[in-house]
Amino acid sequence: MPRSAETAKFAFHHTMIRVKDPKKSIDFYTNILGMDLIHEAPNSDFTLYFLGYDKSEGQMSAEEKANGLWMRDAVLELTWNHGTESDPEFKGYSSGNTDPGRGFGHIAITVPDIEEACARFEKLGVQFKKRLTDGKMKTIAFILDPDGYWVEIVPQRFKV
Amino acid sequence: MPRSAETAKFAFHHTMIRVKDPKKSIDFYTNILGMDLIHEAPNSDFTLYFLGYDKSEGQMSAEEKANGLWMRDAVLELTWNHGTESDPEFKGYSSGNTDPGRGFGHIAITVPDIEEACARFEKLGVQFKKRLTDGKMKTIAFILDPDGYWVEIVPQRFKV
Repeated sequence: MPRSAETAKFAFHHTMIRVKDPKKSIDFYTNILGMDLIHEAPNSDFTLYFLGYDKSEGQMSAEEKANGLWMRDAVLELTWNHGTESDPEFKGYSSGNTDPGRGFGHIAITVPDIEEACARFEKLGVQFKKRLTDGKMKTIAFILDPDGYWVEIVPQRFKV
Repeated sequence: MPRSAETAKFAFHHTMIRVKDPKKSIDFYTNILGMDLIHEAPNSDFTLYFLGYDKSEGQMSAEEKANGLWMRDAVLELTWNHGTESDPEFKGYSSGNTDPGRGFGHIAITVPDIEEACARFEKLGVQFKKRLTDGKMKTIAFILDPDGYWVEIVPQRFKV
């Protein structure tokens, strides 16, 4: 079905998940998964972090990337509610994959070489939910982010 | 921080949410929000639906779009566990925004003209969580998908 004129320029911009400790999450999504921290928006009791892959291949400055935030897509928004990181009463967030709370499943990152990507995650001490060798589907893996959200790792390939 | 060689080609591919009734969800994401249904993957007890905006501006056939699925980004994956749509015992999925189950927050769609987009949603009978006129933030809205997941509507703009 062709897109109607009314929705022709709509874009799937971001997915928002809550995180307990932004230091750990930002380390995970930037150093381990290679995203840029594009923009940080502090509020009185929460802070929003917008992350995404550099689609400019290094051509844009940090300021240009931040200013382009609302004109791009494939962004991850992390919401940190201040205090959760040090609150002994805080039970952590639901990954969405157990009851009650089931609904959200995961985010997915595609990689050009999945064997190499998974070997690197192992070396970096990343927690796995499913290694390539586990279960029936030998071509995908699931790792866990610091809050326990599932991150699927999928090979980039030219055929479905 | 520049992307390391090891993560230089990683991409944020998709976000997966479970849906009760795929007919309603696909109608919502295609007819109301303007996404394409790129690929449908039936399994014995569940079916996966991959949706996303046509970035080829009509240049690609349905088959080319499906085959390009794993080389693109900004995809929404819907998982339908067969039977939920007609099971009177099925309680529905958590939106992620209430306890227990809190963690996932929302997905967001950017639009070139938010007043026009919201007026169209009203006309189509879409349920709102937050109209432009509600609350403090007058430039964004939240609508609800058929399972009650929050979908943020944000204007495309050139400055953060």
